[in-house]
Amino acid sequence: MSYSEEKLDEEKVFKDPVHRYIHVKDRVIWDLIGTKEFQRLRRIRQLGTTFLTFHGAEHSRFNHSLGVYEIVRRIVDNVFIGRPEWKENERLLSLCAALLHDLGHGPFSHSFEKVFHFDHEAFTQAILLGDTEVHQVLKRVDPVFPQKVAEVIAKTYKDKQVVSLISSQIDADRMDYLQRDAYYTGVSYGHFDMERILRVMRPREDQVVIKRSGMHAVEDYIMSRYQMYWQVYFHPVTRSAEVILTKILHRAKQLYQDHYKFQYPPTHFHSIFVEDVTLEDYLKLDESVILFYLQSWQQEEDPILKDLCNRFVNRRLFKYIEYIPNNEQLTKLVELRGLFLEAGIDPDYYLILDSSSDLPYDFYRPGEEGERVPIHLAMPNGKLKELSRESDIVDAISGKRRTDHKLYFPYDFLKDFSTNPSIKKKILSILRYK
Amino acid sequence: MSYSEEKLDEEKVFKDPVHRYIHVKDRVIWDLIGTKEFQRLRRIRQLGTTFLTFHGAEHSRFNHSLGVYEIVRRIVDNVFIGRPEWKENERLLSLCAALLHDLGHGPFSHSFEKVFHFDHEAFTQAILLGDTEVHQVLKRVDPVFPQKVAEVIAKTYKDKQVVSLISSQIDADRMDYLQRDAYYTGVSYGHFDMERILRVMRPREDQVVIKRSGMHAVEDYIMSRYQMYWQVYFHPVTRSAEVILTKILHRAKQLYQDHYKFQYPPTHFHSIFVEDVTLEDYLKLDESVILFYLQSWQQEEDPILKDLCNRFVNRRLFKYIEYIPNNEQLTKLVELRGLFLEAGIDPDYYLILDSSSDLPYDFYRPGEEGERVPIHLAMPNGKLKELSRESDIVDAISGKRRTDHKLYFPYDFLKDFSTNPSIKKKILSILRYK
Amino acid sequence: MSYSEEKLDEEKVFKDPVHRYIHVKDRVIWDLIGTKEFQRLRRIRQLGTTFLTFHGAEHSRFNHSLGVYEIVRRIVDNVFIGRPEWKENERLLSLCAALLHDLGHGPFSHSFEKVFHFDHEAFTQAILLGDTEVHQVLKRVDPVFPQKVAEVIAKTYKDKQVVSLISSQIDADRMDYLQRDAYYTGVSYGHFDMERILRVMRPREDQVVIKRSGMHAVEDYIMSRYQMYWQVYFHPVTRSAEVILTKILHRAKQLYQDHYKFQYPPTHFHSIFVEDVTLEDYLKLDESVILFYLQSWQQEEDPILKDLCNRFVNRRLFKYIEYIPNNEQLTKLVELRGLFLEAGIDPDYYLILDSSSDLPYDFYRPGEEGERVPIHLAMPNGKLKELSRESDIVDAISGKRRTDHKLYFPYDFLKDFSTNPSIKKKILSILRYK
Amino acid sequence: MSYSEEKLDEEKVFKDPVHRYIHVKDRVIWDLIGTKEFQRLRRIRQLGTTFLTFHGAEHSRFNHSLGVYEIVRRIVDNVFIGRPEWKENERLLSLCAALLHDLGHGPFSHSFEKVFHFDHEAFTQAILLGDTEVHQVLKRVDPVFPQKVAEVIAKTYKDKQVVSLISSQIDADRMDYLQRDAYYTGVSYGHFDMERILRVMRPREDQVVIKRSGMHAVEDYIMSRYQMYWQVYFHPVTRSAEVILTKILHRAKQLYQDHYKFQYPPTHFHSIFVEDVTLEDYLKLDESVILFYLQSWQQEEDPILKDLCNRFVNRRLFKYIEYIPNNEQLTKLVELRGLFLEAGIDPDYYLILDSSSDLPYDFYRPGEEGERVPIHLAMPNGKLKELSRESDIVDAISGKRRTDHKLYFPYDFLKDFSTNPSIKKKILSILRYK
Repeated sequence: MSYSEEKLDEEKVFKDPVHRYIHVKDRVIWDLIGTKEFQRLRRIRQLGTTFLTFHGAEHSRFNHSLGVYEIVRRIVDNVFIGRPEWKENERLLSLCAALLHDLGHGPFSHSFEKVFHFDHEAFTQAILLGDTEVHQVLKRVDPVFPQKVAEVIAKTYKDKQVVSLISSQIDADRMDYLQRDAYYTGVSYGHFDMERILRVMRPREDQVVIKRSGMHAVEDYIMSRYQMYWQVYFHPVTRSAEVILTKILHRAKQLYQDHYKFQYPPTHFHSIFVEDVTLEDYLKLDESVILFYLQSWQQEEDPILKDLCNRFVNRRLFKYIEYIPNNEQLTKLVELRGLFLEAGIDPDYYLILDSSSDLPYDFYRPGEEGERVPIHLAMPNGKLKELSRESDIVDAISGKRRTDHKLYFPYDFLKDFSTNPSIKKKILSILRYK
Repeated sequence: MSYSEEKLDEEKVFKDPVHRYIHVKDRVIWDLIGTKEFQRLRRIRQLGTTFLTFHGAEHSRFNHSLGVYEIVRRIVDNVFIGRPEWKENERLLSLCAALLHDLGHGPFSHSFEKVFHFDHEAFTQAILLGDTEVHQVLKRVDPVFPQKVAEVIAKTYKDKQVVSLISSQIDADRMDYLQRDAYYTGVSYGHFDMERILRVMRPREDQVVIKRSGMHAVEDYIMSRYQMYWQVYFHPVTRSAEVILTKILHRAKQLYQDHYKFQYPPTHFHSIFVEDVTLEDYLKLDESVILFYLQSWQQEEDPILKDLCNRFVNRRLFKYIEYIPNNEQLTKLVELRGLFLEAGIDPDYYLILDSSSDLPYDFYRPGEEGERVPIHLAMPNGKLKELSRESDIVDAISGKRRTDHKLYFPYDFLKDFSTNPSIKKKILSILRYK
Repeated sequence: MSYSEEKLDEEKVFKDPVHRYIHVKDRVIWDLIGTKEFQRLRRIRQLGTTFLTFHGAEHSRFNHSLGVYEIVRRIVDNVFIGRPEWKENERLLSLCAALLHDLGHGPFSHSFEKVFHFDHEAFTQAILLGDTEVHQVLKRVDPVFPQKVAEVIAKTYKDKQVVSLISSQIDADRMDYLQRDAYYTGVSYGHFDMERILRVMRPREDQVVIKRSGMHAVEDYIMSRYQMYWQVYFHPVTRSAEVILTKILHRAKQLYQDHYKFQYPPTHFHSIFVEDVTLEDYLKLDESVILFYLQSWQQEEDPILKDLCNRFVNRRLFKYIEYIPNNEQLTKLVELRGLFLEAGIDPDYYLILDSSSDLPYDFYRPGEEGERVPIHLAMPNGKLKELSRESDIVDAISGKRRTDHKLYFPYDFLKDFSTNPSIKKKILSILRYK
Repeated sequence: MSYSEEKLDEEKVFKDPVHRYIHVKDRVIWDLIGTKEFQRLRRIRQLGTTFLTFHGAEHSRFNHSLGVYEIVRRIVDNVFIGRPEWKENERLLSLCAALLHDLGHGPFSHSFEKVFHFDHEAFTQAILLGDTEVHQVLKRVDPVFPQKVAEVIAKTYKDKQVVSLISSQIDADRMDYLQRDAYYTGVSYGHFDMERILRVMRPREDQVVIKRSGMHAVEDYIMSRYQMYWQVYFHPVTRSAEVILTKILHRAKQLYQDHYKFQYPPTHFHSIFVEDVTLEDYLKLDESVILFYLQSWQQEEDPILKDLCNRFVNRRLFKYIEYIPNNEQLTKLVELRGLFLEAGIDPDYYLILDSSSDLPYDFYRPGEEGERVPIHLAMPNGKLKELSRESDIVDAISGKRRTDHKLYFPYDFLKDFSTNPSIKKKILSILRYK
């Protein structure tokens, strides 16, 4: 029997709180899970700094990756199997792409991407195609198999049916993370009837569509997504922690460039600071490494690095106010920066504007946002119809981008009137905090 | 108003997946949660190495500590309040002891306690009474308050009513962790009707008792406890990871004592290796620090340290067989040690016997295990009756200690026949693995 | 102690799947639950004919009434208590109105209201104010108390704060039935974070408002409501059973007026058929009585009554097609009626147009639909804001009435070509069923 | 294609709160569900009078029957399929027997069986083999098929593998009702990991066994069963309602034999009272019929029948005390009967001793209780082992019969001192109630 068809003697199961059990019968999948690069995902939290807002959100990307795999497995093995439109020979490819789609994520991706211009998708490609255990396993299937997996994840694979299982507006990735993040945070949003959605998914030549009879379950899913974005993912306290982490990375890089003498030298960061990171270096990064530095740097002499690390480690976060991006507020922001400088608080590190934005659902508009593949319903008459043309609810929220701006600052510094009391009072009166 | 009675302007709530919401209205509790020492519990997993068996079990002791606090809060504020036997003036003490009872836990406690003879209870006392932020907060309540909290946690406090809320066979600690660990692992054990149990708890002069009408809910709780111990806490795969970690710590200490030149020197371990650890050093330890070393030491030259760290980090665990402690097996074990030496595999690090043992419920027998306070039922006639005298189920399992022995070894080494094939074959035939 | 303040020696609890426990401590509430008229609600299903679509939906109005009571109890005893705007002296009134608000419902209310012009609200008033056990209990509180309860339920009570607890767009009634009906049907809609909503409810002079911070939970509730309406309450199969029941009642009345000689005379229906029903007669009606007749009438000679009863009892329901109310379809409907007559199938009983319509949320527009009290948010600045002005989602669906028309017919009759085959084929071709 | 192999064009699903979805693809199953006799199960509650104790327990046997079918379907289609020991040609037989196993149940079975010596198993056989719609459907499969289904349900079928799916100590019947009854009552017992148990079930030549690795899930199931029996099924309040119902039936029969002139004559009961009930008469019975009489008979002149019906309909149940069957208590019981007579309260109807008894799990002991087929574990070495020899917990409770006796009486009568005050006081002092 070829490696690609090899089955385990006995099916392995992982106990999973979200999907109850994750089933593995393919040798290839089992071997991939056992690789170093996949095990590394255990050391990277799925939701970055969110655990500082929702204490339950400590789950890793390892969890989520298994979950996405399991959803795709259920779709292809329980729903698509035997249907003429389904290309059964793409089964293993679909499962591997599902399992590995987040392989390139590093610790606290958002902040690292912002500061060092990391691109987790590029790292995913590098791991799949580079000198890694994952690559070795995939190559055993077929020499071109690693490349095919990489293309599915990059959405460039020619067969869009497979791509849309992993990446679309109702893909296995989104369905897993909404439920999983809801489970671990404990919020009551994020629930929808996935079992129903899976049962009404149908393969078509170049996409996966939803039978009309399942439309209401999809509406529920889209509303869940909307609520999770605003209640969890863009939570202002989470963003406060992210803002601080971003500033720590900026500061460390700055100090490194200034030849500051670290008590705990940033060994793991050298190639990062010069923005020439190798795959090997990248794979050594995980959250324990980053937290090790953050904790150690609390003992540094540089007051900004020391303070920011203390804030992150001990959860002494910045406070925030709403910010509306108009001329009046912009003028105020400029004035505030001046006052911060006067008060001896570096505004580059301590007065931060942060924005979040989401588009709950959008249909495809040629030429823009090409990857937002719309959801198509298969109508009783056999034709396809774009979701928002059939659903009042989805139509109502379709294409409405919502943006939220917040201004972050260290309230504890400002209310410490032992220095510069009058300036600080002026700042506080402009901020009108509380 | 005194600090001990101070309330927050607005009640704070934490979203919690297990108890839905955790409510904080007391200023003292809020301040304790904000201390460095309490925040540190975020960086220590509740279940140590269990996440390598149950991938969902990544939750921290921070979670659990809040949970225990919340349970005690519900008991005292919703059930005990207004009852003549309840000492309302012990309310804050009870809440603080609940919140802080695990404060002294370090990373991977089991392994550290085994290798370095750490005593997390002693560290809890040290944090409560030493130069810490927690101590500062407690002292503001009353100069003797830190001492009182320490006594409740140490079970030496004179008022046993308060002690039994936190430490008994059906205390808030156990009720929280059973449910919480079940939630995060996803197992179906660990559920019982806590709401019912809380409603039937009654304060007595020197203990907390359960109304007879709630006996069945208590039976269910005891069965949950039994199942969780054997299905989760003593899971052989978890113990495999623990065995490896223990051996890593042994090896690092040995190398340190042998003046081995570490590529990544064990800075954080110096005072630990000489078993003269200070509170300050101890508080710097957390799982990110330990994992940082484990990951780094994969690059060490010492083959044993390098190998063991690789095993832990990349989850290449030891396999195991059942071991029955009789003469025949003991003889075999001695023989195996000899064969391991011959095969060039150090049995001190690679052939490990590990035992787990549990007593699901026991009533008090004078002179032994004094801290196993039995559960008393308050019968309709007002008298107390020890649980196992009333419950058939509990009587049936009462006092029955169950022990489980496993022998751990590196199956991958043994099946590598490139060296010493005949010895290894002999070992495998003795082990009769698979 | 006055009767209105009397407490039970020991709190009574009802195990409830939706709210876990329902707590009763007030003697008045306990006595009301024990009355004949309240116990009668056990014999009336909450969702009428819905159990023929969702087999789990067999729960009674007794369930729901206790649930509404419990929600109001939690609001007033856990959230409103102690707030200056809350009129504590209205507590018992609120609880009683909550418990009794559905007291006048009869079996299969919809159909009876349609055919006999019953008004369950009028019956509620009659039970509260008439010669009933409920009235006796309420009168013991205060001679004017029954009248006050009646006014709250009729929404004419002067204190709108109390009224809006029971009747508004986010009242205890709706919150209970959405969750309860979801639980028993097993659908995944109907879930929202009620605990959160209760926590952010605030009493105002003339209404109950929601703190802005709870807006997202309210959005979720409104979406749940929307989904429950279309997925459960207006389910076309449920409506099919209702259509048949309505026609049975029509037929029985017609036969009665025509002096048809019933084998099982409609003793319980006499005063109903002449539309002069007494309270005593009304209270004798429950679902077992109605089902007794439906089952017995399967043996009647009248072919229409016999057939319709057989359909209802043995669930041989009408099929349906979509109907769009335009000229073309109207013409077809007229044609169909003619063909039905030709085919010997009485269209008055066998060709039925049924419509359902819902307005998911609407703000108040003076002069119309006065009872649709809008939901107001209490903004951080203390001002009130109507929900749809703050919530994008609610604004999107606000005021959008959706109507659904279906045409029902007996497919089994039409496909029986043993008589009038050509006419039936013509009918089927017009209906284009399947 | 033969009828037995015919599949529906599109799979039908029933939304079920316990199993989420019930799937039907076989034409035979679909046709059976549509029969009159199966639909009749909608009108018979699964738990008889339990809804008077747990208000949520209003679910019908229709629910449960579908649930048992679904469990067997999952076992045979997802777990057994393809295994050499599984007789795939018994698949449809297994499904039909599962679906129809409770077909012969009547309304309030317990009471009817007690008073009229009904045997619901005999009625099941009669429906399967008699002139019924169910029989017609089964006969279409094969002329001997009705007989085979009847034998499986009667446990006389030669192939014990099939029998043990439906009737054993861990059969689909028990697994469904434990979960279902827990769901509808809302109690927290009754939960166990059925998905796990199904996955470890294995067909053997003459039985279904459980893989050793699933033993703990089975332990959990047995504990659930134990708790459900004592917390729900034998609840003393439920038994109070049953006692009253039994006495109503006794009284009505007595009056009928005494030629009492009923205002509402017991038309449906004639053949029952003479214990010569036909299948046709039996099938006309359902709970609405029985409740119709109970409600009507509240207007009868006979004071006992009138009173007992009023008690049942309006839930004015008997109170109870514990009764220990020893000489002393027996003497008291005799004395009490005398005093009841003196007080003018007929002890045959108003002083009732009721017993419940359960054996949580028992292994097979030759010659006794032959149908209690024990649970066998398939050990890793391939041998079978009876569960209680491997499980400490099960061993502890195995074979321990527990019996509970209660004495029921009308407390309201006894505390009415307007007549015979001294005798009643004496009675109350003997009963020592409250």
